[in-house]
Amino acid sequence: MADVVFSAKAKLLDGLTTQCESRGFTFTLDEPPSLGGKDMGMNPVEALLSTLGACKCIVTKAFAKNHGINLKSVHIDLDGVLDPDGFQGKNKDAKIGFSKITTKFYIEADNTEEEIRKYVEFVEGNCPVMDTIINTPEFATEIHCS
Amino acid sequence: MADVVFSAKAKLLDGLTTQCESRGFTFTLDEPPSLGGKDMGMNPVEALLSTLGACKCIVTKAFAKNHGINLKSVHIDLDGVLDPDGFQGKNKDAKIGFSKITTKFYIEADNTEEEIRKYVEFVEGNCPVMDTIINTPEFATEIHCS
Repeated sequence: MADVVFSAKAKLLDGLTTQCESRGFTFTLDEPPSLGGKDMGMNPVEALLSTLGACKCIVTKAFAKNHGINLKSVHIDLDGVLDPDGFQGKNKDAKIGFSKITTKFYIEADNTEEEIRKYVEFVEGNCPVMDTIINTPEFATEIHCS
Repeated sequence: MADVVFSAKAKLLDGLTTQCESRGFTFTLDEPPSLGGKDMGMNPVEALLSTLGACKCIVTKAFAKNHGINLKSVHIDLDGVLDPDGFQGKNKDAKIGFSKITTKFYIEADNTEEEIRKYVEFVEGNCPVMDTIINTPEFATEIHCS
């Protein structure tokens, strides 16, 4: 397989409520009232953590057998530290996005702790969402006005 | 406001199907059959594009008035280029995640094209999800085995 183009759309509805869509699948994001929204869904930074966690779960499952991991279950908790003063323009020294992301793997497997730890290292290095954040891709922007 | 911790959870269900949750809001991610899944939702890289687009939509709306933008509507299409041979281990030279992300803004506003273009520059620089990808945060990993 060579390069594949994955696509998605985001459309602002009412207030800050935004509908996301890809291949017919949708979810709604918003902000809590404390950040100006109506709380119709998680917000984009929570969705980013969710997506990162899901990508790590899927990679954990997809490659387990080939790595000799007898996986019974995996779930992941994620915490991200962000100072809203940054994007709200209240503190120009505050980072706009996450300054730190912590991933907590909970893995049940018929393997030694050492085998699981080694496998998690592989998972973290083989996760497309993680790689996109660590090894920043090229960005292009097009603007269509009306 | 100082640092705030945002949190999310991801839990592998059946096959590659994964449930994401934050503050009681949920969505399901999966992979299409071509990537080993059952297609119960968009996949994590499509969700990443969605989340990035939603974040840009929300920032576009939230700061429009303060920037003199008379916003009527905004929607964003995103394309991300990724070679699945990378994470599938078939080509060690292929990047694991996105190599390029293109954002197409469709903005309807009572403003000149120049004003809108200048505003989009601000939006791109003030988007927490975009910043997290461009200015990579610190990462920490905890592993709990059972």
